[in-house]
Amino acid sequence: MEQFSKVVDQLRQANEVLIVSHLIPDGDCLGSMLALAEGLQQLGKKAITVNGDEVPKMYRYLPGSEGILLPGSVKKIPEVIVFVDCTDVERAGDEFQTILQSETTVINIDHHISNTHFGDYNLINTEASAIGEIILRILEELNVTITPRIATALYTAIVTDTGSFQFENTTPECLEAAAKLLRCGAELELLRRNLWESRSLLNTRLLAYTLSNLRMTADGKIAWISLEKEYMDKLGAKSEDCEGLINYPKSIEGVEIGIFFREIEPGKVKVGFRSKEKVDVNLLASRFGGGGHKRAAGCTVEGSLETVIQDVIEEAEKLLRQTLKG
Amino acid sequence: MEQFSKVVDQLRQANEVLIVSHLIPDGDCLGSMLALAEGLQQLGKKAITVNGDEVPKMYRYLPGSEGILLPGSVKKIPEVIVFVDCTDVERAGDEFQTILQSETTVINIDHHISNTHFGDYNLINTEASAIGEIILRILEELNVTITPRIATALYTAIVTDTGSFQFENTTPECLEAAAKLLRCGAELELLRRNLWESRSLLNTRLLAYTLSNLRMTADGKIAWISLEKEYMDKLGAKSEDCEGLINYPKSIEGVEIGIFFREIEPGKVKVGFRSKEKVDVNLLASRFGGGGHKRAAGCTVEGSLETVIQDVIEEAEKLLRQTLKG
Repeated sequence: MEQFSKVVDQLRQANEVLIVSHLIPDGDCLGSMLALAEGLQQLGKKAITVNGDEVPKMYRYLPGSEGILLPGSVKKIPEVIVFVDCTDVERAGDEFQTILQSETTVINIDHHISNTHFGDYNLINTEASAIGEIILRILEELNVTITPRIATALYTAIVTDTGSFQFENTTPECLEAAAKLLRCGAELELLRRNLWESRSLLNTRLLAYTLSNLRMTADGKIAWISLEKEYMDKLGAKSEDCEGLINYPKSIEGVEIGIFFREIEPGKVKVGFRSKEKVDVNLLASRFGGGGHKRAAGCTVEGSLETVIQDVIEEAEKLLRQTLKG
Repeated sequence: MEQFSKVVDQLRQANEVLIVSHLIPDGDCLGSMLALAEGLQQLGKKAITVNGDEVPKMYRYLPGSEGILLPGSVKKIPEVIVFVDCTDVERAGDEFQTILQSETTVINIDHHISNTHFGDYNLINTEASAIGEIILRILEELNVTITPRIATALYTAIVTDTGSFQFENTTPECLEAAAKLLRCGAELELLRRNLWESRSLLNTRLLAYTLSNLRMTADGKIAWISLEKEYMDKLGAKSEDCEGLINYPKSIEGVEIGIFFREIEPGKVKVGFRSKEKVDVNLLASRFGGGGHKRAAGCTVEGSLETVIQDVIEEAEKLLRQTLKG
């Protein structure tokens, strides 16, 4: 709580703030950045948002997202820099490493337990379902009016990080925050149109194709889908067209481990793992040089698609047996 | 509000209550019935739940669902009967028609604007996202303790009727109710396991098959899938294995009308319609003798699968043109 007050004080005193979030940005980091920037601007401050990657198409409805800069466009070293949703500075990109050695005040706002506390001020709230929840509290403390633009950004942050309030991190607090944001004018219609009802046609084709070749083992407790580069190329599909496919094998009744194998180049396979309740897929991914969380992890493995599938499934079966025995 | 107090008074005075909901029961009516019964039992009353159809497998996790009776098992005419989520008595089944002529006090709790006000007391709240929201208020007014069992039932009611808080009926009030229910011990884990992560293998096969044959017309504004009885029979699939398939065509980017054609017997096709933002598919369905709502409707059409598809798509194209012109 002390860190909370200190962060709020720093933001209250600052005139110019640079707000940065992680590479391959998601709804939580984008919504949080934009809401914070908009709030600080409302208080008459200059606030700039920066991300090392372009805003994914699905999030371009976010008010202000068109103003997010690439790191190269920032010429002046800021007075205060705020990192949102970054466990460490590298998550934002290599460009930001030097800032830690400069005079700039570094504020680190995160909810991951693995955060490295790299900031001058570290507001790490692991109970928050999304960074959006923390930003809402900060803006309220700063007496910012939660406009419909801010509400839409923060609602997006919360709803995406909780999987539409279905993930384990769903709390009474995040539902209350969502209720408040709806009252403040969050435009659910925008989310509906852009997040929930705009599956690309290519994604639909890939879903049909991969599910047609769904395979299972271990009495239906392990299910997997796979995708050859050749087929992707034939359709002209990009990696963003694979969005969400990984969730399908796991969502099947009785499945504990769901796996998605995608050949990213000849002899190289990206493997995504999801588990339902028991198996620690972070362990599984780490056996192939990857990592992640207990219920979601990934790795990249060298070898042909068939060999990689064989090796990974073998390890998955082994881990499943150990887990169910233990 | 006056009706609210009267309904609460009637329930407070009653000793024995029969609670009934509609045929082909869903999460809202089941969760609401069970929560109300549990609450009244807590106050020392006798409360019996009845439904004309069996509880679908996916909802059998609901505490108390094993105790829901079929109408035939109820021998005694009750002192008070509560209909939940029924626009008219027929929705509950023909058996209940005679009750309206009896001495029994009929309480009608609903949120559909088309409700026929068939009860002695009619609590029709069209602002409520789900009946579960209304039942929560009633139980609170009756000073019932919201136990984890009641909370799980009411959370299920709200979350299913709002499509996990994604549908247009999502309100600040229903999010606040959900927050409260989580605090009271609603077991989200049960919902996750039973509602969101237990797609049947047959459903997955049908999804793969129908999406492989997805077709589009009208510049990608109309998309449809179809399913032959022969293929269903080959897989041994039942109508419940088609759950959710209808939402896929509509969820594609740019699609305004999504349609699902299912041959239910030779020469008879069930047609389901969904629309995204503009087209009134109730109109479309009614041209083929069916009906429903603006965004979701259906009908059953005689003819071969090919003929029905051709006729319906032609009408859909016509209505789309009229709508976009108008």
